[in-house]
Amino acid sequence: MKPAIKVLALSGGVGGAKLALGLSRLVEPGELAILVNTGDDFEHLGLRICPDLDTVLYTLAGVVHPEQGWGRADESFGFMDELRRQGGPDWFLLGDRDLVLHVERTRRLAEGERLTQIMSEFASRFGVASRLLPMSDAPISTLLETDAGALEFQHYFVRLRSIPKVQKLHYAGAAQARPTDEVLDLLRSRSLEAIIVCPSNPYLSIDPILAVPGLRMALRAARVPIVAVSPLIAGRAIKGPTTKIMNELGIAADALAIARHYSGLIDGLLVDEIDANAETLRALAQTGIRVGVTRTLMKTLDDRERVADAALALAAEVASARGAGTGTAYPSAAPIDARSVG
Amino acid sequence: MKPAIKVLALSGGVGGAKLALGLSRLVEPGELAILVNTGDDFEHLGLRICPDLDTVLYTLAGVVHPEQGWGRADESFGFMDELRRQGGPDWFLLGDRDLVLHVERTRRLAEGERLTQIMSEFASRFGVASRLLPMSDAPISTLLETDAGALEFQHYFVRLRSIPKVQKLHYAGAAQARPTDEVLDLLRSRSLEAIIVCPSNPYLSIDPILAVPGLRMALRAARVPIVAVSPLIAGRAIKGPTTKIMNELGIAADALAIARHYSGLIDGLLVDEIDANAETLRALAQTGIRVGVTRTLMKTLDDRERVADAALALAAEVASARGAGTGTAYPSAAPIDARSVG
Repeated sequence: MKPAIKVLALSGGVGGAKLALGLSRLVEPGELAILVNTGDDFEHLGLRICPDLDTVLYTLAGVVHPEQGWGRADESFGFMDELRRQGGPDWFLLGDRDLVLHVERTRRLAEGERLTQIMSEFASRFGVASRLLPMSDAPISTLLETDAGALEFQHYFVRLRSIPKVQKLHYAGAAQARPTDEVLDLLRSRSLEAIIVCPSNPYLSIDPILAVPGLRMALRAARVPIVAVSPLIAGRAIKGPTTKIMNELGIAADALAIARHYSGLIDGLLVDEIDANAETLRALAQTGIRVGVTRTLMKTLDDRERVADAALALAAEVASARGAGTGTAYPSAAPIDARSVG
Repeated sequence: MKPAIKVLALSGGVGGAKLALGLSRLVEPGELAILVNTGDDFEHLGLRICPDLDTVLYTLAGVVHPEQGWGRADESFGFMDELRRQGGPDWFLLGDRDLVLHVERTRRLAEGERLTQIMSEFASRFGVASRLLPMSDAPISTLLETDAGALEFQHYFVRLRSIPKVQKLHYAGAAQARPTDEVLDLLRSRSLEAIIVCPSNPYLSIDPILAVPGLRMALRAARVPIVAVSPLIAGRAIKGPTTKIMNELGIAADALAIARHYSGLIDGLLVDEIDANAETLRALAQTGIRVGVTRTLMKTLDDRERVADAALALAAEVASARGAGTGTAYPSAAPIDARSVG
């Protein structure tokens, strides 16, 4: 029998995967599920590519490129070299080993398998005990309206290096999508104890998940603490265009904006200690969201565990403040580095 | 304007490609077309793989693996290693560079492009002046009925290493196929001067081509000499299961059997000098097929040119014996190494 899932993480790619790895190490094998953004997925060379799912998979499997945070550590590029030589599109890097997943996924999708089944099988292949759950089995595509026209995510992010100015975002196909039975079952299960929103880009990685009709409501209906980890440190994101997009959308890039963005969804927000000044904490307190503080930068494996630990502790705090009397997702004592400010 | 095609070669994979390369070096750039077997084509990992077309392409492009005779000279196997590690099927070797063609072909076919168009574009990419013509744009699959059951060609040839005993061959899909307009136009063109049947496996490589409805008749209707190069030397094929299959089908593996096999199609047969004994030549003479003799083993580039030269010379001889008064495909003097026995 599969172990019951106790923690669900919502994640995009690199940053989210780091926290997911930390979480996976704090719970028993198989007690973590990761609900992953598929808004970045796209067709390239006729192959179905799911960057965030694969990044989470490779990270949890311990085969991810350690500096990059995506792709394989041990990779070769014969295919890419040859594609370039033949004049093919070379803006999206495809490693030879990485290609196995794209080819296999494309074949299985064409045969009618659901992405959820495929990723579950991939996780088994890689010996990953955590469950990888696509946000939906239906294709949803994050589209950015920019000063360079409407762009699919990978074209914006990789091909154009996030340079175009973002005016608006939407999630094409979301209206026709629905959450998978696997996700709905999990959110209805009595074993679930906490939902953690990883420090991924709120607009490009988490919002697409929340755009799946019914999913936001199902997350709330799970009646477990939902805690987000802020992707910002001193107004800057570690990686990716979060800050740039917030600026372009006219939103101040700070912890308060993150709290407001997730307002109505989250019960707790874990912010970086750099941002834990009196003024910010006061403003955050007014949102009604419980705040935790830790160093959120995740450079080492210890960092990933520490941030995961702080997020789970904050969730436990929320649960205990509610007096729900349910078990806590995180059985250990409060983490040394995390201070709670409620 | 494209140069007019003067010579058409019928070819399978490795052996045929060698002669095609020889032919390509004896005519002006663009004057050779190769009509290639697609009966070996198959779906693998969801990719459309055309082994003979790619072997001919790589050979003419000068990028083929020199010892193997197929695949790329400069190749890496990251994809294959990873596929194997993940427990995928590893019996069919796919190089990282080689994969570019399979991925690109699969994508284009899915978009509705014809295989003929795709291979023409691939030839351009590789700077190949000769025209690569699939025997049909419709899928045809060589099926072998064996003591191990019915097998697709690649399963018989690669996965089971030609070990099962062949009882019967057929070409699934052939009845629904038709020759392409490109091939029919070429066979009707006044520029065509000779058709050369390469020393490929008659059963596995040439018969599938001839099984395309209307193609055999169109070849004859071209009214140009058709010359085959025997794939046997002293009753043995250089490569592949030709002799084994002939034995299993109860056919003596000798030049006479090849002449009889192609009876009604060919005007001339080029045999190896080892087979040019008085008895064989007498028997061949009775078939009404004009016979040429040369060393047919093609180890070096010079060999390939020499055999090509002898085949074209034999075609010229057929044309001149007919008194057709048309130009000859091959303008030079009779090759030193080729003796004509008619």
